[in-house]
Amino acid sequence: MTATSRQIRLARRPQGEPVPGDFELARVPVPTPGANQVLTRTVYLSLDPYMRGRMNAERSYAEPVPVGGVMEGGAVGVVEASNFAGLARGDIVVGRTGWQDYAVSDGAGLRKVDPAHGPVSTAVGVLGMPGMTAYTGLLNIGQPKEGETLAVAAASGAVGSVVGQIGKIKGCRVVGIAGGPEKCRYVTGELGFDACIDHRARDFEAQLAAACPKGIDIYFENVGGRVLEAVIPRLNFFSRMPVCGLIAQYNMTALPDGPNRLPQLMRAVLTNRVRMQGFIVRDFAAQQADFLRDVGQWLRDGRIKYREHRIKGLENAPVGLIGLLKGENFGKVVVEVSEDPTASR
Amino acid sequence: MTATSRQIRLARRPQGEPVPGDFELARVPVPTPGANQVLTRTVYLSLDPYMRGRMNAERSYAEPVPVGGVMEGGAVGVVEASNFAGLARGDIVVGRTGWQDYAVSDGAGLRKVDPAHGPVSTAVGVLGMPGMTAYTGLLNIGQPKEGETLAVAAASGAVGSVVGQIGKIKGCRVVGIAGGPEKCRYVTGELGFDACIDHRARDFEAQLAAACPKGIDIYFENVGGRVLEAVIPRLNFFSRMPVCGLIAQYNMTALPDGPNRLPQLMRAVLTNRVRMQGFIVRDFAAQQADFLRDVGQWLRDGRIKYREHRIKGLENAPVGLIGLLKGENFGKVVVEVSEDPTASR
Repeated sequence: MTATSRQIRLARRPQGEPVPGDFELARVPVPTPGANQVLTRTVYLSLDPYMRGRMNAERSYAEPVPVGGVMEGGAVGVVEASNFAGLARGDIVVGRTGWQDYAVSDGAGLRKVDPAHGPVSTAVGVLGMPGMTAYTGLLNIGQPKEGETLAVAAASGAVGSVVGQIGKIKGCRVVGIAGGPEKCRYVTGELGFDACIDHRARDFEAQLAAACPKGIDIYFENVGGRVLEAVIPRLNFFSRMPVCGLIAQYNMTALPDGPNRLPQLMRAVLTNRVRMQGFIVRDFAAQQADFLRDVGQWLRDGRIKYREHRIKGLENAPVGLIGLLKGENFGKVVVEVSEDPTASR
Repeated sequence: MTATSRQIRLARRPQGEPVPGDFELARVPVPTPGANQVLTRTVYLSLDPYMRGRMNAERSYAEPVPVGGVMEGGAVGVVEASNFAGLARGDIVVGRTGWQDYAVSDGAGLRKVDPAHGPVSTAVGVLGMPGMTAYTGLLNIGQPKEGETLAVAAASGAVGSVVGQIGKIKGCRVVGIAGGPEKCRYVTGELGFDACIDHRARDFEAQLAAACPKGIDIYFENVGGRVLEAVIPRLNFFSRMPVCGLIAQYNMTALPDGPNRLPQLMRAVLTNRVRMQGFIVRDFAAQQADFLRDVGQWLRDGRIKYREHRIKGLENAPVGLIGLLKGENFGKVVVEVSEDPTASR
C-alpha cells in the first residue's frame, strides 16, 4: 500500500466570489524528497486573504497559481524525512508548503519552530506572516507616536488584532473597525482597543468620526471599500497609511459605480500631506529576528493576545477561504490538517 | 495728493471655474510701515494654481482668503521704506505680499534677491517657490535613480519643467505630459525631455504606455484627473508619487461620475508597493539653501531652462489666474505690476 497525499488544487479561476467548484481535491502518492529537500506532513494550514489574488490570472506582486496547480499557502508541518542538513525527522517547521497533506520542499525555505515558545500554530499567526505584516507595516510605515490616533480595519483579524495591540504598546489611541457587535466587544474587551466601530452599522461614518475626535494619524489599511471611504475625511496632517490588503475588493469583477472617489482621496493626500505606502511582509524580511524577539516577548508578557478560528480537515479549506473573504471568521483562520504532535492532550 | 495702491480682492467665493466677477479691484492709500516692517512696491506678482484653493471656504493646508480680503500670492518687489534692520530702500525682495501695488509686511518674512544672479522674476519661478517645489518633492519623495522612468504632468509649467530637467540631470528617462503639440515640442526640443505626450490626444493612454516601455518609477503628480488615471496602470514595483498639486480638479464642484476608480488606485498601491506622499514646499523649508545652490548652479550652467508667461498689469491678474487653471498659459505665469529697476533696457 502506497501512502497518498490529498491536494487542493485550483480547478478554474473564480468569477468574483469563489465557489467550492473553483477548487478540486486530488490524491497523489506521498512524494520523496531529493537532495537538500525535506518531506513535511502538514499540521496547520494558514488561510489568508491574499490567496484570493493568487487565484486570478493577473500577476500582482506574485505569480498566480496555475489552473490545476496546488493552492499556495503557508503551513506548519512536521518533518517526515529530511535530506537537508539543518532539519531532522520530527522537527516542527513553517514554510510555504501549500494546501496538501504532504509536501516536498527545499529545506532552506523552511523555518524551524520551537514548541517551547508556545503553540506551534502561532507560526502561521501572531508569530508568523500575519503578525510580522502587522509589526513591520505599523512600525516602518505607520511610525506610531505616543498620543496619536491609530485606526485599524479588520480589527479582530490576524493582522489587525496585532496592529492595534502594538499601537496600544506604543501609546496610541487605537480605534478598531470590525464586522458585528461580537467582534467589536472582543476588540475592546479582550484586545484592549480604546474603541471599536461596527462597519455594518448604518451610521458607521458618524460613529467613526465620534471615536476619533482628534482625527486619524495612522490608518492601517487592509480592507478598502466603505471603511477607507469613511477614513479619508478624518485623515490628519502628515498622517500615514500602510496598505497591506484590500479584502473588500478582492472579489470585485468590475470597478464599482460612481461617484469617482479618486479625486477625494487625492485631495486628502495633498492637503494633509498623507503618506500612503503599499507593502508586503517580505519587503521587510530583514526584520524577522526583531519581530520574533519583540512580539514573542509581548506574547509571553500577555500584552498581545490572539484568537484562532479553527477549521477541521484539509477538505474544508475551500469553504474556509470563501468564508474568510466574507468576514465570516472570527480570528486567525487555521485549518487543522493532521495531528499536532506538540498539542497538550 | 496721497499716493494710492490698487488691490485685487476676493469679491465672492467662486462656484467651480472662477469668473472675473469673483474678484474686485479696490484703491487704498499706500500704507505706512510700523516697527520692523517694510513697505514694498510690487514688481512681479506670481500666479500659481494653489491660489484657487485659497478662494474656497474650506481650509486645506492654509486658511482661505476671507471674502473681501486681498488675494494672497508671492511677489518680487522693491523696498520703498524700511523699519527692518536687514533691508534698505531699493533692495529687491521676494515674499508673500499679495495681489497689490504696495504692501506692508514684516521684514523677517521677506528674502533679499541678488540681481547679479539673474533676472529677479526667477525669485517667484525657477529660483522660487515653484522651483523649490520641484526640487524638494522630486529629490525627497521621488528619489530618482539613474535609468528609472520619471513621468511629469504639466511638463511645460513652472514646476513640471524643473522636475523633468532635474530628472534628466539625475539620469532618468523623462516623459512629460502637456496640453497641445506646441508645449510638447518645447518640452522635448528646449527642455530636453525624452518624450512628451499631449494629454488632449484621443489615444493619450496608449501614447503614454508606448513612451514608458519599462513602466513608470516616479510620477510627479500636479494634475490629477485623466493623466493620473492613465498613469496608474503603468506604475512599477516600488514606484513613488510625490503629490504637489491637482490642477485638473481644483474647479470641481462635485465628485465626477463613476466608475469609482479608488479601488483601482488602491490595488496599484498595494500590489506594486507604491509610495504616494502629498507635500507642500514649506515642509522642506530647511532645504532652501541647498535648492538655491543646486538649481542656481544648474541655471548658470544652462542645464535648467525656463520660460515665463508674462501678463501686463495687476488688473489682469484675475484673467491670468482663470487662464492658468485652464492650462492656457505657456510657462511660469508672472504679472508685471510695476517697472523692474533691474531689467536691462
